[in-house]
Formats: sequence, C-alpha cells, structure tokens
Amino acid sequence: MTSLADLQTPALIVDLDAFDHNVATMAAALPGERLRPHVKAHKSTAIATRQRDAGHRGFTCATIREVEGMAAAGLGEDLMLANEVADARRLGAVVEAGARVTLAVDSKATIEAAAAGGVREVVIDVNVGLPRCGCPPEEAGRLADLARARGLEVRGVMGYEGHAVGVDVEATRAEMTRQSMELLVAAAAAVGGELISAGGTGTYALNTWATEIQAGSYVLMDTAYAKLGLPFRQALTVLSIVISVTPGSWAVADCGLKALGMDHGNPSIDGADVWFCSDEHVTFGAAALPAVGDRIRVVPAHVDPTVAYHDRLHVVHGDEIVDTWPVDLRGW
Amino acid sequence: MTSLADLQTPALIVDLDAFDHNVATMAAALPGERLRPHVKAHKSTAIATRQRDAGHRGFTCATIREVEGMAAAGLGEDLMLANEVADARRLGAVVEAGARVTLAVDSKATIEAAAAGGVREVVIDVNVGLPRCGCPPEEAGRLADLARARGLEVRGVMGYEGHAVGVDVEATRAEMTRQSMELLVAAAAAVGGELISAGGTGTYALNTWATEIQAGSYVLMDTAYAKLGLPFRQALTVLSIVISVTPGSWAVADCGLKALGMDHGNPSIDGADVWFCSDEHVTFGAAALPAVGDRIRVVPAHVDPTVAYHDRLHVVHGDEIVDTWPVDLRGW
Repeated sequence: MTSLADLQTPALIVDLDAFDHNVATMAAALPGERLRPHVKAHKSTAIATRQRDAGHRGFTCATIREVEGMAAAGLGEDLMLANEVADARRLGAVVEAGARVTLAVDSKATIEAAAAGGVREVVIDVNVGLPRCGCPPEEAGRLADLARARGLEVRGVMGYEGHAVGVDVEATRAEMTRQSMELLVAAAAAVGGELISAGGTGTYALNTWATEIQAGSYVLMDTAYAKLGLPFRQALTVLSIVISVTPGSWAVADCGLKALGMDHGNPSIDGADVWFCSDEHVTFGAAALPAVGDRIRVVPAHVDPTVAYHDRLHVVHGDEIVDTWPVDLRGW
Repeated sequence: MTSLADLQTPALIVDLDAFDHNVATMAAALPGERLRPHVKAHKSTAIATRQRDAGHRGFTCATIREVEGMAAAGLGEDLMLANEVADARRLGAVVEAGARVTLAVDSKATIEAAAAGGVREVVIDVNVGLPRCGCPPEEAGRLADLARARGLEVRGVMGYEGHAVGVDVEATRAEMTRQSMELLVAAAAAVGGELISAGGTGTYALNTWATEIQAGSYVLMDTAYAKLGLPFRQALTVLSIVISVTPGSWAVADCGLKALGMDHGNPSIDGADVWFCSDEHVTFGAAALPAVGDRIRVVPAHVDPTVAYHDRLHVVHGDEIVDTWPVDLRGW
C-alpha cells in the first residue's frame, strides 16, 4: 500500500482515531435511530457502513445519486432524501428495487412528482426559519392531506434549523433551535406520522424536540464547526506539499480552490497564517517557513464541498495508510 | 441524445455559438503560438482540441494530471506545466513517451526535482508581483545557470501578473501589467532563451511584452471576468431546476456549493437576486418568481473551480444538445 510520503498531493486524509472517536461519541449521545446520519458531508458508502455498524440504520441524503448509491451498497433500509425533487422517477426505481425511500415534499408540485415517480413515502418539509425549502408551518397539515389523497404514506415532518446550526454563542443557538422546533412540533401535530426529523452537527445536543437528528459533518469536521466547542475531533485534513518558498516572506503549497470548499473562507494551516488560495495553490506566512518538499496538513473551512472535489479518502493511523475509502456518491 | 429538458440537474452547459465566438476572437487577437491556452480553466481535451484546431499548438497546464491527460490525447506537442512540483517523475515518464514538457522552476530544489524526474526543458518562473510562486527577479539568471549546469534546457521565463488580471479599471490593469512585465523582460535578458510566457484573460490585450499569453478562462467565461468588458461571451452556465417556491418571497433551485466554485462569491441568475447557496441549493429572490419544475441558468462567479466539480460539459446550440465533452483532466 502507498505510504503517506508517496501520496500524490493534494490528498484527503482521514485520521482514523479521530474518526472513530467522532462516530463513537455521536452514537453514545444519539444511539440507534435517534441519529439519521447525513451522507452529504462525506459522500462515501464506506463511512456510512461504519455509521451503520455503530447502530444507525436510517440515513439522510441530499441528492438522488446519494440515494441510489446507498441503496446499491446495501444501505437502503431507510433512506430519507431531505430535499425536494421535480422528477422522482429515479427514486421510484430505487423503491422498486427493494430499498425504502422517504422523500421530502413541500408543495403540490413536489407531492405530484413523488407520486408520479413511484415514491411511496414522504415527509412534509416545513420551513422553520431558514429561507430555503419547506412549506410555511401553517400549510403542513393541508399538504399532508393532499399527499395522502394522492396515495402517499406520510411519515411525519422534517424542518432544518440551518440558520441556527453555525451560531457561535451556544445560548443563542439553543434559543433559535427552540423557536424553530416549536414551529415544527406544531406542524407535526397537524401532519401526523411518527417522524420529526431535524438538526445538524451544531444542534445535535440542543435539539431535544426532534425524534431524529440529521447530522453529518461530525464524522470528519471542519474549522467552521470546530469553533463551536463540540466534542468532535478534526478527522479530515488535506495533505499538501510545499512547492515554493520566498525566504522571510511566504510559502506556497499545492492545495487550492479545486481541493477545498471555499464558501466558508480560507482553510487553516497549523502555525501559519493563510493569505489566499489560487486554483492549485495556498499561499501562507509563518514565523518558521517550511522548505520545498515538506508535507503539510491543510484544514478545510467547510467539509462537505471539500470532500466533493476528491475521489477518495486516505485513512491513516499515525503515519501509516490503513485504508482507502472511495468518495462514491459524487455527482447527481 | 438526451434533450435539454431531460438532463439531470445541475448540469454544465456550453453555448456553442458563444464558445466558437470566444475561440475565434482570441485566435484573431493572438494567433498561433502567441497564445498558449491554459487548460486549467476547462480541464477538457475536447476543448483543447478545438483550441488546437484554431491554430494554437502549445498549451499551459497547472497539474501533472493535466499534462498526462493532454499528452495521452495527442495534444503533447508543447506542454508547459506553469507550476512547480516537488516530484517530477510522472512528468519524466510523459517526456519518455514522446511528448514535449516544459516545467516551471523557481528554486534549487525544484530544478533538482525536474532533473531527477527526467524532465529536460524548463522555464524560470519569476515573481512579478503576485505573492505566490516564482523567484525574485534578480535571482532568475543565477537559477538559469544552475539549471543548465544540471543539464536542463532553459527555454526562457514565465511570470504571471495574477494580481493584475482581475482589476476592474483598465488603465490600472494596464499599468500593473507594464510594471510586472518590466521585471519579467529584465529577468528574461538575464536568463536567455526565447520564451517570455505570461498573462491571462484579463490582460491578453494589454500584455504586449510577453511572447505568449497563458489565457484560459476566455473560452467559457464567468461573472468575474465579465465585469472587465472583454470581447468574450458567457459560454458556460449551470442548468438548474426550481424545486421550491415560497410565493411572494423566494425560490430555490438545485445548484449549490458542490456545483459552483464559490471563492469569487455567489453566482448570478438573470432577473434574480441570489441570496445564498447551500450544498445543493441556491436561494434567490425575483420580481417574478419561477414555478417548481422550471429550468433556469445559473452563471458561475469563477469558471475554473466550477468546472472541476463536474464530469462533463453538455454542448448546446439553441435548445438542442449537440455534443458532450468529458471534463477528463480532473484530479491530480
């Protein structure tokens, strides 16, 4: 097996100890079906398999491709596509092949798409404060009636407090979550069904109203979530090699815009000050600059769009590569 | 062939008329070897083939993978890797297989890597104002001597005025380019060789000092370069489908952080005001909101990291898909 020193850079590295800690910590806090791990953060059935082995049998997906890939990997016991689609025929084919697929709907048009595409089970997606998908809370009951009239099984509601999950101050995050979940619980009463699906890594311990939490980032982590003081360790880094040094000023490593999700800003490098990223470069200053050929670790600001640029995760224990996990759920 | 109405979204769309216009406009301005098209913007040998057919026989690459892929596609007549590498063995193998590869070097270490890896030709990369790779101008001659002493052919210099290419005010952009190229021309005199390689889409018409321009973005374009008033048309859009509408407020389409390079900020949608992007969503307001199921075009802010998320480009003429070009130079 390739050693860490021989890997072509930039390369995604998963620290196995940190990863195992994160999976175990979350499974202790939210055991079994209290967690519906979101696969969008890692897009890897190898990681999802480890989450299942930790006791979680239902999963959350963001794309049709993620649903298809999870089902094909034998992880289709209870898949929720927590997103609306305008054409559900590929999902209907997954159901036909034997997987359980529950689709989010928030309008007459998406209910119609679900039924026409061969999906049998839905949740009513409720807007709980983030201006994105989800119906107004007061319309949830009416949509549930509409879905049932169209022959769909309504399993309950989902509502993502995405405006709260990244808020630094825990008390504020908790209060925003409470307000959102009051809306969702009221909608759930109007909708019926058993599921109240919500939450993310930032609110997994604060959201006590949801019956299940859709967290995903916790397994790998990033600098944005690291600021919240959660009990999860940074398991993901990008291995990069220094290719240019201007003595006394700055250094450049080969990890740039095509290896990093940039919507949350620049990545971090331990002991260095990141100046900017270019397509294939990160320029940084440091009190002690490295030398050309040195290998460094770059910590992404946002895990999800970072992983989506790569086709595999190299799993390390210390300096030894012990496994390679394909990022096999990319694309749409 | 799939019709535009059946494409799975999000999908990269290339407008063939705009693309042909861009290729022809640049080939008229910088014919033949006056342009060394940069493939990092499109990562597609299908596009590079069309640039070659327009008269450009040399190409610029940013990664080893791009060099390998171009050579494998029969486009290896004169490839420049305009970037330093710490290990050049894969490039040496490409040279051994018959392609011409010229590698940028800016230090003793990278010269040593080039020679040890089996690369035979280099350019001295000179820092002309962007704090990234490149030696200080006054060291260029010494590095050229060092490279020749190591048995390498020195073809000349390169120096990228990357701090200038995106500057809005043309007179400022021109003046910054002039200052950068004065440094590069002086370095070229100390280095020897024939090549003075520099420039990009933003300075292709202003940089009259370089013997060849490394522009790439001009073929597809993005909103950042569109602000400069260049004669190139927006050829690239992301086809997206509306999945949720909150009447009177906002709409959501399925084109998010994993389909768009975000380092230059939010994408644009004609007639709409983009609020924010999530992993698989763009939320936007508009005076006239679309309906669920409507297909819209999202214009990326930065072309290079956008294309790198996708595995193919769908080429359209009007509403008809006339070709599919693989994005076959991704990865490293």
